[in-house]
Amino acid sequence: MGIVRTALKVDVNTPAAKQPYLHNRWHPDVPFCGTIHNNETVKIECLDWTGGQIGNNDSADDVLNVDLTKVHYLSGPFEIEGAEPGDVLCVEIQDVQPFEDQPWGFSGVFHKENGGGFLDEIYPHAAKAIWDFEGIHCTSRHIPGVKFAGLIHPGILGCAPSAEILAEWNRREAELISEKAAGGTTRTVANPPLTTNAHAGAADEATAAKVAAEGARTVPGRPEHGVMKDGQKQLGMVNGKSPIFIPGPVQPQFGPGRMLYFEGFSVDENGKQHFLDATVAYRQSCLRIIEYLRRYGYDDYQIYLLLSAAPVEGHIAGIVDIPNACTTIGLPMDIFDIDIRPETPATKLDIARAPVSTK
Amino acid sequence: MGIVRTALKVDVNTPAAKQPYLHNRWHPDVPFCGTIHNNETVKIECLDWTGGQIGNNDSADDVLNVDLTKVHYLSGPFEIEGAEPGDVLCVEIQDVQPFEDQPWGFSGVFHKENGGGFLDEIYPHAAKAIWDFEGIHCTSRHIPGVKFAGLIHPGILGCAPSAEILAEWNRREAELISEKAAGGTTRTVANPPLTTNAHAGAADEATAAKVAAEGARTVPGRPEHGVMKDGQKQLGMVNGKSPIFIPGPVQPQFGPGRMLYFEGFSVDENGKQHFLDATVAYRQSCLRIIEYLRRYGYDDYQIYLLLSAAPVEGHIAGIVDIPNACTTIGLPMDIFDIDIRPETPATKLDIARAPVSTK
Amino acid sequence: MGIVRTALKVDVNTPAAKQPYLHNRWHPDVPFCGTIHNNETVKIECLDWTGGQIGNNDSADDVLNVDLTKVHYLSGPFEIEGAEPGDVLCVEIQDVQPFEDQPWGFSGVFHKENGGGFLDEIYPHAAKAIWDFEGIHCTSRHIPGVKFAGLIHPGILGCAPSAEILAEWNRREAELISEKAAGGTTRTVANPPLTTNAHAGAADEATAAKVAAEGARTVPGRPEHGVMKDGQKQLGMVNGKSPIFIPGPVQPQFGPGRMLYFEGFSVDENGKQHFLDATVAYRQSCLRIIEYLRRYGYDDYQIYLLLSAAPVEGHIAGIVDIPNACTTIGLPMDIFDIDIRPETPATKLDIARAPVSTK
Amino acid sequence: MGIVRTALKVDVNTPAAKQPYLHNRWHPDVPFCGTIHNNETVKIECLDWTGGQIGNNDSADDVLNVDLTKVHYLSGPFEIEGAEPGDVLCVEIQDVQPFEDQPWGFSGVFHKENGGGFLDEIYPHAAKAIWDFEGIHCTSRHIPGVKFAGLIHPGILGCAPSAEILAEWNRREAELISEKAAGGTTRTVANPPLTTNAHAGAADEATAAKVAAEGARTVPGRPEHGVMKDGQKQLGMVNGKSPIFIPGPVQPQFGPGRMLYFEGFSVDENGKQHFLDATVAYRQSCLRIIEYLRRYGYDDYQIYLLLSAAPVEGHIAGIVDIPNACTTIGLPMDIFDIDIRPETPATKLDIARAPVSTK
Repeated sequence: MGIVRTALKVDVNTPAAKQPYLHNRWHPDVPFCGTIHNNETVKIECLDWTGGQIGNNDSADDVLNVDLTKVHYLSGPFEIEGAEPGDVLCVEIQDVQPFEDQPWGFSGVFHKENGGGFLDEIYPHAAKAIWDFEGIHCTSRHIPGVKFAGLIHPGILGCAPSAEILAEWNRREAELISEKAAGGTTRTVANPPLTTNAHAGAADEATAAKVAAEGARTVPGRPEHGVMKDGQKQLGMVNGKSPIFIPGPVQPQFGPGRMLYFEGFSVDENGKQHFLDATVAYRQSCLRIIEYLRRYGYDDYQIYLLLSAAPVEGHIAGIVDIPNACTTIGLPMDIFDIDIRPETPATKLDIARAPVSTK
Repeated sequence: MGIVRTALKVDVNTPAAKQPYLHNRWHPDVPFCGTIHNNETVKIECLDWTGGQIGNNDSADDVLNVDLTKVHYLSGPFEIEGAEPGDVLCVEIQDVQPFEDQPWGFSGVFHKENGGGFLDEIYPHAAKAIWDFEGIHCTSRHIPGVKFAGLIHPGILGCAPSAEILAEWNRREAELISEKAAGGTTRTVANPPLTTNAHAGAADEATAAKVAAEGARTVPGRPEHGVMKDGQKQLGMVNGKSPIFIPGPVQPQFGPGRMLYFEGFSVDENGKQHFLDATVAYRQSCLRIIEYLRRYGYDDYQIYLLLSAAPVEGHIAGIVDIPNACTTIGLPMDIFDIDIRPETPATKLDIARAPVSTK
Repeated sequence: MGIVRTALKVDVNTPAAKQPYLHNRWHPDVPFCGTIHNNETVKIECLDWTGGQIGNNDSADDVLNVDLTKVHYLSGPFEIEGAEPGDVLCVEIQDVQPFEDQPWGFSGVFHKENGGGFLDEIYPHAAKAIWDFEGIHCTSRHIPGVKFAGLIHPGILGCAPSAEILAEWNRREAELISEKAAGGTTRTVANPPLTTNAHAGAADEATAAKVAAEGARTVPGRPEHGVMKDGQKQLGMVNGKSPIFIPGPVQPQFGPGRMLYFEGFSVDENGKQHFLDATVAYRQSCLRIIEYLRRYGYDDYQIYLLLSAAPVEGHIAGIVDIPNACTTIGLPMDIFDIDIRPETPATKLDIARAPVSTK
Repeated sequence: MGIVRTALKVDVNTPAAKQPYLHNRWHPDVPFCGTIHNNETVKIECLDWTGGQIGNNDSADDVLNVDLTKVHYLSGPFEIEGAEPGDVLCVEIQDVQPFEDQPWGFSGVFHKENGGGFLDEIYPHAAKAIWDFEGIHCTSRHIPGVKFAGLIHPGILGCAPSAEILAEWNRREAELISEKAAGGTTRTVANPPLTTNAHAGAADEATAAKVAAEGARTVPGRPEHGVMKDGQKQLGMVNGKSPIFIPGPVQPQFGPGRMLYFEGFSVDENGKQHFLDATVAYRQSCLRIIEYLRRYGYDDYQIYLLLSAAPVEGHIAGIVDIPNACTTIGLPMDIFDIDIRPETPATKLDIARAPVSTK
């Protein structure tokens, strides 16, 4: 086969907005930055980039003050040889590696008023943990006593939407914003198109303005994607809704007897009963782990950061008997230096803290 | 060790209401039906029994007409030697087996107006599939071409609630009912105490009346449970919220490369955007599997029934980027006789149907 | 499907020799004791029985004095509907369970002069451990502190040999005996046909005499077996050599990081180098585990007994670089109550011993 | 942590004999090429190098004519800070990667008269397959239709032997050579010290001569190795015999139901019975796979090459019932493009061949 072609190289020392092979809006008019052939294996740098705002240091101020209009830069878009609307694109991700000279990543808890997150009602501050890769493993000086296989998430991947699909995204997200505003919600519930710092890759000025005005942000993921030939019909995908995938054969294995599962029900932390609400239940599963790991001397932000990076298993356990949805999170006990089995008495560790920044 | 003591035998040919070792209400006053000693291994029949209303036959009329006030009979309660409030009970489930002379079980889709279920807006009718056990495997004449290890769920287990915990359950579920009624919901959102067919085991008349008036139904599961000695404090369980568990080392293994994952997002089947709603997303994951398996000749109710019994893996994949929650369901491809890989062309099977009953 | 037909019931309180549905010789003339139909599921008791000589007690005298002409009674033979020579028989073992009223088994180390075993040069005495089943798990009062999923081995299964295959077995095993005798070996290297206590099932007197004179013992396993239709040709099985099999999806999983592997090389315990001898290497892997587990207070016979029952993984690691073959045995650390990781200091347990009997 | 220190770089374009950081003899006098500190993470190039004799091409002539005095060059030796005799060295292999600009490896069958191998009585010719890495996967143009996770073996690792251990190696291997010669064996059974092309790293002339005269070849692996502090005593390692190891949590998982197992018994391909000989049995397991895969159009050398690289599982299944040892090899069915289940009719593929060279 020979050496794999590098289809795109990113310069991490140059602002993303200056690099024409990056973009941060889903829009059919963002120009292709290259072509990938059928059955071709290529190397692509920086699939989903934060733009270099977060540093390998011991302060969470960069997370606190992050400019969220300048994140989630994607590499591409690429033209796929022979692809047509209605096809389904089959992608095989063969490996994901960190940059050799930047062998680290981060977990961030965003401030409630600048990004926020799943538990921001309870944990409003910004926090950060740096993860160092050593071979396939990673550790964090900010969360001592933990080590696991640092398999890297590929980030956001997707097909450029058609004008129709993009319009549908904008319609339904705008409707949500209207409804929630009418209901009195003050928190941000979705991010509509925004011209500030929109990056349309190599687009000319007029196109860039159109992309900025209409384009969807590069997060969240959205269901409509596709491409085998005529695949949407072949695979029973109604309106091309939602990707399917098969994991690779190589993944961390801990053995079921080494997973400690925490249940959560749709009764929130204020004792309020919700109706089959898996989101509320999942938040409770997270809180149960935070309560459990506190006993070892970790503080809440450390555990919250850990949950966002460690190979935990989040499950929907039951959505059947009204009104309680039930979720579980499995925590692999072998990522800890210490023995965290319930039957072993807990001793508080005297450990360093993760940086937390407040407004 | 000798032969294991059978702590409770059930007569499946006698109505549950006539058997004093069964009950169908959570209430502190249901009398103990026996004692289990510390570290004792016992055999208990029928942990969670439907009361014999569903038959091993080819009609779903029994599911359609099921009397839901006469289901979910639990065995017990048992006194646990030495247990006190605040303790955490450690239970090891060593095996779950079907009755030797009744080697079968069922999956049921309940009619939208008599029980309902997760997809009842789309699939309102009653349906049923009978599963026959052959050794550790099970098959269904109602869902041909499928076979898997029929590991039996132990049903509902719990600790009898204190009067305070029971009052809290009733308070928060009643509040949900009021709120939803005020909002105009017509569907049943929770089941408050009900005297009809309440079974308080061996209780005397006055106690039975109290249990009937106050007792919580035996489903859904609720978070508050316990008992090791002083365990709630030791394990960091705030207010005894939510059990934790470790699975046994023996479970079906398919290999990650043999699981086909279906994503779902919090955009519902009408195109409406919901805010980080994992329940909506999970419903979409289910619908994606139904669409996919249709291509092989299964009808929607068969697939829906299959999803309720097969060893699928339901995951929370992401609740971070507003407004889309993302869930996945992993479908083990090896439970099918046929090759269901996406790259293999699908052929419709000419197969029998599962019974469906309509009002 | 209904209830599974029991194709053969054994009376464990009657001597095996009196039961016509059992036999202890491989021979084409042992009469069928029943017929199994194509695709039929049946229950068969006691596939491979020791004849009741070993008791659930705390002495190894029964192992010491065991009459080895009265063991390995097999159930059958069964006629397989439609099977012909050259076919390959597909058997699906759906479950193996202990007798409900005898939930125990044993591991035995046989005396060097009465059966012997893999390590009899080093451990010549007889020893025994009784394993009690509790649900899917087993424990032994003779090897305290150990617990694992007691999945039961189905014992010896095979197809009755043709006269030609039987003659070949007898020829090659006799040749081995002659060669080894010529070389001065005094130990038993194979067991030729023996009339003492031969059991030919329901055979008439003349047939029974023929079976006794020619029949092969029911152990060891031998490669030649069959029967899908025309399967030997279809599957590329030259002369029907060696079964193939696919394990079920349900098995104990410990996670690779919880297995401790012990290497062994083909240098024996006296420092003698052998040429690519995997048997010598495997014996060394066993000895390494014995040395390792001694530190916890187990004695050598306890560990040897444990190795014969626990879910260890024995591997051929390398037979390539002359003269050293290399084998490994993986020991699942989670079957022990105590932490046996190499980095954890070992403390000797004060535990009971397994019974050992000497001549 | 910062960037990992590269403790040793190899120049693959320079002959190994000219590089002082490589050596190809085990001997206590080979000079250290550097020091590794306690708990230090380092990157080391080319742990076990063939010296560049094998090319990425379509001929097996290089394997046929390989100079086996110029292979198995090891990097090092390194001084380990603080290590003393009797200690046990704990090494964590965090990752093994191919050279970025040489993303390929090879499987070789060596000619019977130049190296030979496990099946050389049956397959005497030289053969070769080139494996190309694509991310974590590998494929071979010489064995079409096969793909698996190409996890790279780290090669030979060891501690430099003491003079006493080296003398013991030489003693016992010489004894084997004498014995086999006395018995009339003509094949090479072990490789005694050889001065030709001995490479003692940076040793001065006198030392290099001593190393050449006494040093053991860098293959095979040998049991005696060590270093935790006082570890041999702590771990019950008698005379430091045989390393122990724990695999990492990341490995290919196929699911037990996707492994096809081939049994082998200690009856050789000529029908000769051997006494509990696991090596003979394992050779039979290999031959059974070759027979099985032939049906798909692979030739014997292709399958033999495949067996030396694919993630098969070689097991010792039984060494108990005289005279048959039993081994199994599990073949993961999912590494093949085609369906190789026994119940699926086989079709011969029209595929390319692997290069084979004959003398």
